[in-house]
Amino acid sequence: MTTEDFAGRVIRAAEQAAANGLSGLLVTPGPDLAYFTGYRPMIGERLTLAAVQAGREPVMIVPSFERPGAEAAPGMGAFEIIDWTDGEDPYAFAARVLDPRGRYAVSDAAWALHVLALQGQLPDAHQVSMSAALPTLRAIKDANEVELLAAAGAAVDSSFEEILGVQFAGRPEIDIAAELAERLLAHGHSEVEFTLVGSGPNGANPHHEVGARTIREGDMVVLDFGGMRDGYGSDITRTVHVGEPSAQEREVYEIVRDAQQAGVEAVAPGVPCQEVDRAARAVIADAGYGEHFVHRVGHGIGLTVHEPPYMVEGETRSIEPGMCFSVEPGIYLRDRFGVRIEDIVAATADGVRRLNNCTRELQIVS
Amino acid sequence: MTTEDFAGRVIRAAEQAAANGLSGLLVTPGPDLAYFTGYRPMIGERLTLAAVQAGREPVMIVPSFERPGAEAAPGMGAFEIIDWTDGEDPYAFAARVLDPRGRYAVSDAAWALHVLALQGQLPDAHQVSMSAALPTLRAIKDANEVELLAAAGAAVDSSFEEILGVQFAGRPEIDIAAELAERLLAHGHSEVEFTLVGSGPNGANPHHEVGARTIREGDMVVLDFGGMRDGYGSDITRTVHVGEPSAQEREVYEIVRDAQQAGVEAVAPGVPCQEVDRAARAVIADAGYGEHFVHRVGHGIGLTVHEPPYMVEGETRSIEPGMCFSVEPGIYLRDRFGVRIEDIVAATADGVRRLNNCTRELQIVS
Repeated sequence: MTTEDFAGRVIRAAEQAAANGLSGLLVTPGPDLAYFTGYRPMIGERLTLAAVQAGREPVMIVPSFERPGAEAAPGMGAFEIIDWTDGEDPYAFAARVLDPRGRYAVSDAAWALHVLALQGQLPDAHQVSMSAALPTLRAIKDANEVELLAAAGAAVDSSFEEILGVQFAGRPEIDIAAELAERLLAHGHSEVEFTLVGSGPNGANPHHEVGARTIREGDMVVLDFGGMRDGYGSDITRTVHVGEPSAQEREVYEIVRDAQQAGVEAVAPGVPCQEVDRAARAVIADAGYGEHFVHRVGHGIGLTVHEPPYMVEGETRSIEPGMCFSVEPGIYLRDRFGVRIEDIVAATADGVRRLNNCTRELQIVS
Repeated sequence: MTTEDFAGRVIRAAEQAAANGLSGLLVTPGPDLAYFTGYRPMIGERLTLAAVQAGREPVMIVPSFERPGAEAAPGMGAFEIIDWTDGEDPYAFAARVLDPRGRYAVSDAAWALHVLALQGQLPDAHQVSMSAALPTLRAIKDANEVELLAAAGAAVDSSFEEILGVQFAGRPEIDIAAELAERLLAHGHSEVEFTLVGSGPNGANPHHEVGARTIREGDMVVLDFGGMRDGYGSDITRTVHVGEPSAQEREVYEIVRDAQQAGVEAVAPGVPCQEVDRAARAVIADAGYGEHFVHRVGHGIGLTVHEPPYMVEGETRSIEPGMCFSVEPGIYLRDRFGVRIEDIVAATADGVRRLNNCTRELQIVS
């Protein structure tokens, strides 16, 4: 990312904001700020706030002692930096450069502390969340971003292929999680964000993370893992079986695999996001397991591992080329087992590209 | 922490809220939710919200597939759980159990996404930030919490003592950071949150984290490190010197050491927080280095490593027994070197107790 790339994003965002009737964007530390400036300060109680406004110079308000770090960020060239010192009121600084009756899109993850203090300073201004106001801002990736996501996807694919060779039976879930984490790092990840291992009945809880349970012969094991590689996220789920599966286990697995395939095949420019969810869900419902698929089918990925667009009933906005997101149906049979299969895909000009390409057939581990 | 301990916190919070003219608390995942329930779900775009209201049963709204995890948390017994499924509007669920004209304290770190959506559902309700509305809620630790912080403090003390024996000169900062991280884990930390190593001119940037710079004979080296141990935070800073210091280096060091001592000695029940900052700052200003102490002197610590109370000019609220916070003055000579010395202290009924007790005299490393 060059300084010009960052500047281009700022200009496009200001234009998008104006086109959507917004005065501008209020951007706080986290993925939005990284997107516009490459600056990644700690997130906390001290206000750091970038204001991108049509027709005005972009401004960033930073704690004075963090100014050197901000100045060193690659995308800061376009910004005027205003610093404040502990004991001063940073919200008053912000109010001076904002439109007191403006309508601003604010970073989804901005702290309530800051949002409410800005409302106090600017009672006649209006804040709306970034994902509601400018849902496609970071959701449409450029070609370079898609390749970074593809490289992260290839790294988790390799990690999955390697984990198939390790011993599962007789070991606690946390052992497998640790091995997955090691492999992610070995394949170039800078951060491991999650290594969920749900064996047997634990797999029936979609958010079970990992536990002390010993994996046994006959277990289905859900493996959901990912992190950050070169600043972009990875996220994959595969479900494996320890030894030979029962007929029902194989049946459930194949329904989920077919649902995932149907979801991916539904992806195309112009298709409402909710249709991806519907396509996958229909396969599971038709097979009689509809009540056991208890979550949306997908979420966007990029500078974070969970971001818009969401593939969920009610999301009527259309898929556009460059959107990257997961397709991850599951069936969860409480107290018994679960199956989930997840790939990241990129919408293209004429369809879809999978960014995970390791096998989706049921793998038997020992 | 027993179920009764958590229930006691909920009851006290509801009473405090009522006493402060609030309808209740809106608590989101993170340290506030952990404080009330022991439940630590992932933080994200799906609404998880606990509502603690005087005269009403506490309620928690959770995504349906996270319900099992919420139910398993030790402090959830007092809460009625309401779940919502992807595709439903969780804010409408929240609105049904809240006072449409109520005044609520909301977790400082609650996402803008959730805050603004709740405002949309309840336009006549009012949200204020938790730290503004109920500043002493988590800031006053009970005896058990102080002991957990003391144990975390002892662990970083030991880590510092051990690092004095390693080779500094000729090695990059990141090597020392990695050694500090290893020691924190060896001394029982579950998470390493930061290992700042600022050698030579890097030490003059208070937020320099760590870099590739090779540490050299003659460098001052600022070491600021900490993390989480048994759910509570640690945070210590010591500055060491590689080989013999110059007269000015020693002078600056001793000013900071004396400023830190003065700050700690200012701590007592009933003293305004800003007086701790003033006491330390006066020592540095009197020595002629006032302009080089560019940040507040301290921050609270507990379930996070940065939280209220803040020891900063303008914070006129009084110290109360049980408050735990850092005292960390510094002098930063741009492009040359920096010195910072930080301990965590606990305010007691009659004064102060240091929770870090390794030496504050200048240590020479090789």
